[in-house]
Amino acid sequence: MKNCLENVRNTMPLVHNITNYVTVNDVANVLLACGGSPIMSDEPKDVEEITSICGGLNINIGTLNQRSIEAMFLAGRKANVLHHQVLLDPVGAGASTLRTNTSLELIKQIKFTAIRGNISEVKTLALGSGSTKGVDADIADKVTEDNLANAVAFVKGFSLKIGSVIAVTGAIDLVSDGHYCYVIRNGRPEMGRITGTGCQLSGLMTAFLTANPDEPLKAAAAAVCAMGLAGEIAWSYMKPEDGNSTYRNRIIDAIYHMDGETLEKGAKYEVLQKEI
Amino acid sequence: MKNCLENVRNTMPLVHNITNYVTVNDVANVLLACGGSPIMSDEPKDVEEITSICGGLNINIGTLNQRSIEAMFLAGRKANVLHHQVLLDPVGAGASTLRTNTSLELIKQIKFTAIRGNISEVKTLALGSGSTKGVDADIADKVTEDNLANAVAFVKGFSLKIGSVIAVTGAIDLVSDGHYCYVIRNGRPEMGRITGTGCQLSGLMTAFLTANPDEPLKAAAAAVCAMGLAGEIAWSYMKPEDGNSTYRNRIIDAIYHMDGETLEKGAKYEVLQKEI
Amino acid sequence: MKNCLENVRNTMPLVHNITNYVTVNDVANVLLACGGSPIMSDEPKDVEEITSICGGLNINIGTLNQRSIEAMFLAGRKANVLHHQVLLDPVGAGASTLRTNTSLELIKQIKFTAIRGNISEVKTLALGSGSTKGVDADIADKVTEDNLANAVAFVKGFSLKIGSVIAVTGAIDLVSDGHYCYVIRNGRPEMGRITGTGCQLSGLMTAFLTANPDEPLKAAAAAVCAMGLAGEIAWSYMKPEDGNSTYRNRIIDAIYHMDGETLEKGAKYEVLQKEI
Repeated sequence: MKNCLENVRNTMPLVHNITNYVTVNDVANVLLACGGSPIMSDEPKDVEEITSICGGLNINIGTLNQRSIEAMFLAGRKANVLHHQVLLDPVGAGASTLRTNTSLELIKQIKFTAIRGNISEVKTLALGSGSTKGVDADIADKVTEDNLANAVAFVKGFSLKIGSVIAVTGAIDLVSDGHYCYVIRNGRPEMGRITGTGCQLSGLMTAFLTANPDEPLKAAAAAVCAMGLAGEIAWSYMKPEDGNSTYRNRIIDAIYHMDGETLEKGAKYEVLQKEI
Repeated sequence: MKNCLENVRNTMPLVHNITNYVTVNDVANVLLACGGSPIMSDEPKDVEEITSICGGLNINIGTLNQRSIEAMFLAGRKANVLHHQVLLDPVGAGASTLRTNTSLELIKQIKFTAIRGNISEVKTLALGSGSTKGVDADIADKVTEDNLANAVAFVKGFSLKIGSVIAVTGAIDLVSDGHYCYVIRNGRPEMGRITGTGCQLSGLMTAFLTANPDEPLKAAAAAVCAMGLAGEIAWSYMKPEDGNSTYRNRIIDAIYHMDGETLEKGAKYEVLQKEI
Repeated sequence: MKNCLENVRNTMPLVHNITNYVTVNDVANVLLACGGSPIMSDEPKDVEEITSICGGLNINIGTLNQRSIEAMFLAGRKANVLHHQVLLDPVGAGASTLRTNTSLELIKQIKFTAIRGNISEVKTLALGSGSTKGVDADIADKVTEDNLANAVAFVKGFSLKIGSVIAVTGAIDLVSDGHYCYVIRNGRPEMGRITGTGCQLSGLMTAFLTANPDEPLKAAAAAVCAMGLAGEIAWSYMKPEDGNSTYRNRIIDAIYHMDGETLEKGAKYEVLQKEI
């Protein structure tokens, strides 16, 4: 984990984000906090050149529109040609036909290094359909200690099929490349009361993938641990009157101060091999 | 007031927001703070399905464009068919022809549960024209203790005519269903130095309306009290060096921690009946 | 410096912003913090009327798209006709053809009171091309004590040629009207780890220009000093656990509390005349 974060701080990867306007500021600040450098562009006439000067591309469909969808395909194909790291955050896949179909078409046309979403969104991609309650994971679909074996098998299977690292995040996070599966237990439930912790993680993960191109699985898992650990560290600084808005700031602050040693010590994960 | 907030916390209403990109992050966080769940979508091909899975719709014209205007009408009509709660925040109505005409056409074609704006914006809707200094209330139009009777009569009259709860917010807030009028004196003047406290209130109010479908007047008034009270509580935690950016965070934090009891005790209002 | 800030607080200039959706919320809050009043609009059918009721126009191409580009030209030409103060922030000029060409066309068709960017962006405008590493200044192009004389000569020359105040910001800031050049040494390097301190400065500068129409050079320099000084004051309140997200809030807070006296005393600059 340690070196994954240190590589980000040392190489300052430039990450192109085509992301939603709800959480974009936090995504930019978390990228700066971890040592990366963000650039945003979603105009079709601009994205191919912008993505060319970057090392990674983060595609998030949170507030997709006709223009930004076109930009996603143009940037994604260009990034593939240039062998950049590309991440998909399929926000709300399963909640509407446009979101589901856009996500399915994206994974058909573009090779993603990693896909990060909640279990409902990832199930939608895997099954080609789904039922999502807004942008949060369907409760029936939650990954728990009870259904963990099934969930791991699902994530591994989808990863193998599609050839991307799959990161399903929730109370328990699963990150798999089809062969190994990280089961991660960092984070706090209160993070769900902040808008965009998922979007921030996707930005962070793109920076980690870009700075660690030869270890996508480890890089993705390290980003998940870093974000969850930041939530734990941030929580320790919360005063009784602090709520979700202050917590948001403190989480980004915790990423800002995190070093490899802290991540190494604080990361709570196990790695499951081949068969669970 | 108490049960209005508690119903939000218990039912976690999903609110679809077509809102401006200036304050959208704060709107999302305040919705999460009060116990609701936000989803944003402004693409015409997406909004009907998204609004269908929600309970409430918050339309805010703060940074309207051709695409989002189309989305507002599509989502609004769909929400009406489904008998969802729908709120209009006519930001800047009176400041430009496009904003005035869009607002007037929206209230013609769509049935709004509630409309929330400053006095200049609401006057524009009522009179079909107006003069607005940007997005803040025209000073000549301020609701004060001196012109209160006239302002109450105006708000009641417009509410009766249009069949929506009307919430005019400012130093003194008025909320009426045409029969009763809440006169609310929560809040602090420094809230006007933060961008988007009005937008946040509109998001919050939509959650309150959605969780209390049988009491729209009380729900709208409770949301106004909650926002103003949050401004008072947040102020009590301000240190000498804290300014408008920290105040913004503390207000959302105060909503996060507010319970029914606190709201009940802290709400400062009187209810005027039939005739003032 | 003192009176430049005081004029903002006394006249509360209304500033129309066509700006990127990444940092727009911070731009709005910093405008409110300094005593100005922000309004955002980027729809071509809306911008001419909106800019007409304002005193200043801030054009920032950070997330430009076809629609907002059209709006920039319409608003800019209208603002010129009305003799409003107009500022250009050419975010990412040099990083893509669209950004470079849009910036070049804007300075051809619209008379800007001031242009504010990093050295790479301003060089792109001056030379008609450039090489930019994303939205941050190309390191080879940094203004340092060693190349200061050359940099001052460049900024003066470009200012004379184009007839706008040119503000090049970085570790050392240069602000020139072609005759005089302010060399400003306020600020902290950690400000570069926050997204949008440049965008915020552009918003602030537009308010300063609008409130001081007869002294554009001094107004622009005062805004640069104010932003840098805010970064220094904010830093003095940082606790060990605070990072870039909290720093962002504290900088806006520092602007909120800054008075003319504080700015006068804290501003660190020298004015170079005619020839260096």
